[in-house]
Amino acid sequence: MQITFLGTSSGVPTRSRNVSSIALQLPQRAETWLFDCGEGTQHQILRSDIRISQISRIFITHMHGDHIYGLMGLLSSIGLAGNPTRIDVYGPPKLDDYLRACGRYSQTHFSYPVKVHTVEPGVVFEDAEYVVSCEALTHRVPAFGYRVSEKDRPGRFNVEQAEALGIPSGPLYGRLKRGEVVTLPDGRQINGADLCGEVQIGRKFVYCTDTIYCDSAVELARDADVLVHEATFAHQDAELAYQRLHSTSTMAAQVALNAGVQQLIMTHFSPRYAPGNAIALEDLLTEARAIFPNTLMAQDFYTHEIPRR
Amino acid sequence: MQITFLGTSSGVPTRSRNVSSIALQLPQRAETWLFDCGEGTQHQILRSDIRISQISRIFITHMHGDHIYGLMGLLSSIGLAGNPTRIDVYGPPKLDDYLRACGRYSQTHFSYPVKVHTVEPGVVFEDAEYVVSCEALTHRVPAFGYRVSEKDRPGRFNVEQAEALGIPSGPLYGRLKRGEVVTLPDGRQINGADLCGEVQIGRKFVYCTDTIYCDSAVELARDADVLVHEATFAHQDAELAYQRLHSTSTMAAQVALNAGVQQLIMTHFSPRYAPGNAIALEDLLTEARAIFPNTLMAQDFYTHEIPRR
Ligand SMILES: [Zn+2]
Ligand SMILES: [Zn+2]
Repeated sequence: MQITFLGTSSGVPTRSRNVSSIALQLPQRAETWLFDCGEGTQHQILRSDIRISQISRIFITHMHGDHIYGLMGLLSSIGLAGNPTRIDVYGPPKLDDYLRACGRYSQTHFSYPVKVHTVEPGVVFEDAEYVVSCEALTHRVPAFGYRVSEKDRPGRFNVEQAEALGIPSGPLYGRLKRGEVVTLPDGRQINGADLCGEVQIGRKFVYCTDTIYCDSAVELARDADVLVHEATFAHQDAELAYQRLHSTSTMAAQVALNAGVQQLIMTHFSPRYAPGNAIALEDLLTEARAIFPNTLMAQDFYTHEIPRR
Repeated sequence: MQITFLGTSSGVPTRSRNVSSIALQLPQRAETWLFDCGEGTQHQILRSDIRISQISRIFITHMHGDHIYGLMGLLSSIGLAGNPTRIDVYGPPKLDDYLRACGRYSQTHFSYPVKVHTVEPGVVFEDAEYVVSCEALTHRVPAFGYRVSEKDRPGRFNVEQAEALGIPSGPLYGRLKRGEVVTLPDGRQINGADLCGEVQIGRKFVYCTDTIYCDSAVELARDADVLVHEATFAHQDAELAYQRLHSTSTMAAQVALNAGVQQLIMTHFSPRYAPGNAIALEDLLTEARAIFPNTLMAQDFYTHEIPRR
């Protein structure tokens, strides 16, 4: 389970940073999920080790151009690249209408089913391994943060040990696997938990953009292994952040701190912090670390493995 | 007057070729005109020596995604990069509706006027220096080829020579500049043409995509200095060209030959001609040159100066 940043600039691309997109690679199921799809996301994928054919779900935070203008091109190219069974796209109201309008005007008809899901706060996807939920953030247009939670996995049941203890195979094994205490025909009491390895705690990835500091971001990010939070502006430019409902580096750090996450990665930086500006991008990192030391700053193609606890 | 290819792939970008866009740089008026604007065009501009702030007109050939999906992002970035007085966009019916729909769904309001002109065959723009006209091509959707004609400039009037001949300055000079024969007060007859340098013949650039071979492309390209014509397929894949209403290399060359152009540059190549395919891109060039020797093959960032006669 690892994330790769495909774009880390806000609003417009620069020579070194594209607009927003993050790929979440799930190698055990040979799938990649995308979060946001700014213009040029498919070009960034071509330059990465992500296979376009593995993309199965795309989650969109909000309808601003720097988060969606790459979606039509990517969906078209996915169809031309292979034979996908289906793509699920999740996002705010109007995303479906937008894609339909683009498809109509450009006479683009996907060769495979594209299912668009309009999200509301709560669970937006769940299967045996993952739950994806979202919360409303605070931006100029409706924006949603996403949380991907891998489900906890029970520890491995030690069959060899059970056999060595002379426990008859059959329904008892099932009860022991679930951690129950069972009484054997010979009167011995066996605690199933003693025969099971440690529970594998599921990993949690949270993505909050675009937003000013808000409590729902804190709620969504609670206890996450990795929180990716936008940090468009430096603390000194907080006035701009309030005007445009974006976050400063210190707001991102405050969310991470209040949510008790393991790791904060900041992204979505204003292109203004280029050489020549009195404030440099490194200053945003210093500001954030003063509040939340375990902070990193994303750059395009940076890959971060989300570790198990 | 020079053109720079910003994308030379058809349908989808590859690692080395983006989808369609060509920049026509007019240094004497510090303007750049774009032809088509596939996804990632603004990214290509960032990597070129073209200044986004000099873009004043954008001509769109047709509504397929690989020719328009970069337009909204580019127009947004133009607004954020500077303070343009206005951008004129020319294209097929529905282009205006498409841009309005995208603007509405993404809540993008340009900070400057964007005027969209729906083109029909004939003159689409004219000022003192240039005429741009278009013709309908033959594709699966309405598609237009464009011709940019620089107007002929009268040769420079040799004032020094006129003075040396003792011609009194005043209205006579105007008549001589226009090449008229005038009779001086002293009875001498002077032919204005003798006092004027050679007429500067205007340069002509023609862009035809997407289309199968058609007579209107030949008409549009008549006597052009540079014809850029699509050549999606190799001659051996003509069957595909007929199915999809694209051109083969040999069709592009036939247009160039029949129109009597000076130079053909082929572009819009199918990504299928990658290493591993039995047909290579070089084969398209060989096929075309057999018909029209003065043929080149575009690649991304290739710049071609359009020479004066
Ligand atoms: Zn944004
Ligand atoms: Zn095309």
